[in-house]
Amino acid sequence: MSKIKSPTIRVETSAAKTCEAVRAAQQAGKTVGFVPTMGALHEGHLSLVDASLAECDKTIVSIFVNPTQFGPDEDLKNYPRSLDRDLELLEQRGCWLVFAPPVEEVYREGHETSVDVGSVALPWEGKSRPDHFGGVATVVLKLFQIVPADRAYFGQKDYQQSLVIRQMAADLNVPIEIRVCPIVREPDGLAKSSRNAYLSPEERKQASGLWQALKIAETLVAEGETSAAVITEKMKPLLEHVDVESRCFERVRSTKWRRSQKRRS
Amino acid sequence: MSKIKSPTIRVETSAAKTCEAVRAAQQAGKTVGFVPTMGALHEGHLSLVDASLAECDKTIVSIFVNPTQFGPDEDLKNYPRSLDRDLELLEQRGCWLVFAPPVEEVYREGHETSVDVGSVALPWEGKSRPDHFGGVATVVLKLFQIVPADRAYFGQKDYQQSLVIRQMAADLNVPIEIRVCPIVREPDGLAKSSRNAYLSPEERKQASGLWQALKIAETLVAEGETSAAVITEKMKPLLEHVDVESRCFERVRSTKWRRSQKRRS
Repeated sequence: MSKIKSPTIRVETSAAKTCEAVRAAQQAGKTVGFVPTMGALHEGHLSLVDASLAECDKTIVSIFVNPTQFGPDEDLKNYPRSLDRDLELLEQRGCWLVFAPPVEEVYREGHETSVDVGSVALPWEGKSRPDHFGGVATVVLKLFQIVPADRAYFGQKDYQQSLVIRQMAADLNVPIEIRVCPIVREPDGLAKSSRNAYLSPEERKQASGLWQALKIAETLVAEGETSAAVITEKMKPLLEHVDVESRCFERVRSTKWRRSQKRRS
Repeated sequence: MSKIKSPTIRVETSAAKTCEAVRAAQQAGKTVGFVPTMGALHEGHLSLVDASLAECDKTIVSIFVNPTQFGPDEDLKNYPRSLDRDLELLEQRGCWLVFAPPVEEVYREGHETSVDVGSVALPWEGKSRPDHFGGVATVVLKLFQIVPADRAYFGQKDYQQSLVIRQMAADLNVPIEIRVCPIVREPDGLAKSSRNAYLSPEERKQASGLWQALKIAETLVAEGETSAAVITEKMKPLLEHVDVESRCFERVRSTKWRRSQKRRS
């Protein structure tokens, strides 16, 4: 195991100082790219950092496990945290600044304001996690005020989340360009995710069935199939051994919807 | 009647160009003050402009009658509008830029996002105008994204509104300093308001009873009276001839609350 060196990357815990640093960079004529994360960084996050590094003069990453997007029975307490390793990875990558605030720096005492993006947050994951997208929209808006970057980068893995953020930013006239970047996958097709750490070796093996099922769905859609029921039926055998909740089936419809939208435009 | 000259003040209808202008000014080292208005400017608005002119290098005023803060039975259609005269006044005052967008520049097609500031919007005016403060908080946040000024100026006349805006800006980490400036009154004590134009000469005369009643309340509070019921009872005779709705009584309690808060701190 390689020894973790103490990173020398600039780390800010203060919202005001972070905002000041971003503005100073912009006043010096630099473009700033922003990658909001909850830490426990993997190649998916780093691909967003790379996209920002390629397009912007300076890249800032936030590491903040946002409590308001977790439901009461969800994994806030056990969500994986690895700040030292995250900082080392970001330093190696050439990141400029990390905003890693304590909770009270983001949520002041007495805070009550929330953001509701409307219908895009209601179906799919919004159904099974009723407060999730309100928490996401609110914290991303807050981070956009603290980090008034030129561009912000999100992963397509959280597809509905990317729709929620686009809706929020466009509706509220936030002057930050939203970039949504491709999913990064494990060799067997499973999307990289901090929460993959929760899977036992057996579950991890079975989880690739998800990707195989999605590939089948993709093929069917490409061949012109438009019935979610038909697509779902053909995916089922591959998901037999996966402990997957029904909401995952619904996401297929989201993909279909996106494709049919594209076709229409 | 003096002839209205065509104003030469810079007027922008584009959100993007306005944002760009504010940033360019800041990048040139100038501080920017922002006065959001719904037009029909009077001495109250102009006192906010003056406060901004005194504290900031450049002052930008928005003129936008925001449809989402009017209830279905309210006066959106008939709200007084006087753009030419407003521009002339602002030019005379030494204002830098006026943002006067059409509705569709502020609310894009398909917009659904709204901001809820929580408990501060519920009592008093929030009771009689249930969607009002949501509309106010949302449009002010939007204007703050379009006009990323250093300071923004609001009148204390709309006292609960100022609390709503402070709550929104603080909760969402908006990096704009909120300034709340004193009420400007007519010689007989009535607060200056664009909606005073709705009053008939008889109503206008009677309306000064409001101010007289408030003065009595102020005196009682200064003398140590803390019972809203007692204060209300003593105000009543002065309001007998005023066509005033019961919510106005409730605002007395808001004043008392503010004072008692101050006393405690």
